[in-house]
Amino acid sequence: MSEFAAWMQGCQARMENVLSDWLPPASIAPQRLHEAMRYAVLGGGKRVRPLLAFAAGEVAGADVERVQHAAAAVELIHAYSLVHDDMPAMDDDALRRGKPTVHVEFDEATALLVGDALQSLAFDILAAQPLARDAATQLNMVLLLAQAAGSRGMAGGQAIDLASVGKPLDLTELEFMHIHKTGALIRASVLLGAQCGTPSEATLAALDHYAKCIGLAFQVVDDVLDAEAPTATLGKTAGKDAANNKPTYVSLLGVARARELAQELRADAHAALADLGAPAARLRQLADFVVERTF
Amino acid sequence: MSEFAAWMQGCQARMENVLSDWLPPASIAPQRLHEAMRYAVLGGGKRVRPLLAFAAGEVAGADVERVQHAAAAVELIHAYSLVHDDMPAMDDDALRRGKPTVHVEFDEATALLVGDALQSLAFDILAAQPLARDAATQLNMVLLLAQAAGSRGMAGGQAIDLASVGKPLDLTELEFMHIHKTGALIRASVLLGAQCGTPSEATLAALDHYAKCIGLAFQVVDDVLDAEAPTATLGKTAGKDAANNKPTYVSLLGVARARELAQELRADAHAALADLGAPAARLRQLADFVVERTF
Repeated sequence: MSEFAAWMQGCQARMENVLSDWLPPASIAPQRLHEAMRYAVLGGGKRVRPLLAFAAGEVAGADVERVQHAAAAVELIHAYSLVHDDMPAMDDDALRRGKPTVHVEFDEATALLVGDALQSLAFDILAAQPLARDAATQLNMVLLLAQAAGSRGMAGGQAIDLASVGKPLDLTELEFMHIHKTGALIRASVLLGAQCGTPSEATLAALDHYAKCIGLAFQVVDDVLDAEAPTATLGKTAGKDAANNKPTYVSLLGVARARELAQELRADAHAALADLGAPAARLRQLADFVVERTF
Repeated sequence: MSEFAAWMQGCQARMENVLSDWLPPASIAPQRLHEAMRYAVLGGGKRVRPLLAFAAGEVAGADVERVQHAAAAVELIHAYSLVHDDMPAMDDDALRRGKPTVHVEFDEATALLVGDALQSLAFDILAAQPLARDAATQLNMVLLLAQAAGSRGMAGGQAIDLASVGKPLDLTELEFMHIHKTGALIRASVLLGAQCGTPSEATLAALDHYAKCIGLAFQVVDDVLDAEAPTATLGKTAGKDAANNKPTYVSLLGVARARELAQELRADAHAALADLGAPAARLRQLADFVVERTF
């Protein structure tokens, strides 16, 4: 295993523990809700957003004991969005991370409440203990996550996505959707991780640019994988976008050009980190990982 | 109109403006989501939670220009919970505040996202500008709201409520459900309003006790109204609890004893305020209002 792969595994194991500690035990009432929340969050996922938070924290000299909580908050927002997206009213998907989705394993009402409660828990975590150099900075982290999750962030991106089914979006419109749908939360991961330390304004600006490139690259690669990888590898239903007549980078650009675009975004991400030197090594590796991943 | 009624109207009008200012205009993308968010929140509702926040703010010498934002945050959590509760997977209700529910007027996917985005907006508001004497206190307000909304608060209460349909709950179990389902957010309204000022620990403890009494009284009265008032007066479908075979204070105690219990809780609420003197006058009036209301 490469040194980078070992680092990833270490972060993922740490996140599993931190998330498990924050999630109420299934023995506490309401038991079934807590059981379903744990089912939705634990035991799976690449934890890309936490990895980005940890790597950004390294650039800003952040204590990993603090970053892990900011990372957990972001991951819970991501997890809640998956639970709600999979519901029949949205994507109506039965498989996620190789397991039945929450509404299939439990029921729709529980899935609705799981998502709602996971979102609350994310803000609970961000406010529960000191994570930044001062409380004002930490309040700003709450604001950043709330805006990344809300109607002008992730939830808004979902709405644009829903409205786009069967419609001929152009590349600008597709990018607008993804900047909201996945980009906002990926940006929040990077910036929240950094704000657990003492980043300069210039560092935050560089990370912001990096995050935008990575967010788009992540989505372009997702589209390529959805078009090409088998369901068993993805752990979720493959080929859904085409089946739903959803516009994707692949449908607009073709696979070859989409792959090229991902490489260009990777190069842009590296360029954004040029002035940050050695502490940004993990962020560079993550840019490569996001573009080269096969699942 | 009584002086108290005029104060209520003033607060309600203020809330309408504040909420309208915080909600993104329907002209901004994603337009349909923003339109539906405004539909869900504006133009209706008693605004009981904001009224409690304003009244509690008076006890703590809070600036109303600050309290209004804390009140808006709590009201948005309440509004999101109504949107999700009304969905087919939950209560499946078609009428709310005399209008078609969000999933009926728009669609289920939009209702899901409206609720999600309203919750995010609540935390956005709580973190967007100074509301308390210092940032650490304000972070504590975020924590309070997150816990009140989450799986050990409101969302947990919903889960207990769902699990109780058709089951013979006893009075202790019913109270446990309501302390979560409505009590937690009413408590948050009162404490957040106060924390916009400079409350002493003793004041916060008194307000906490007051809020618990009011929260239960509110629910007991709700059950009485649901059993007795016509749909046209309520602005929502009446008689639903009995139709759904849901345990209520009325089904467990009968109407007469439920009314008596509400009066006892009103007396307890007044007693909790005994040491707070004249600044608690509004809170006393609100206790009376909550118990005497007919809608």
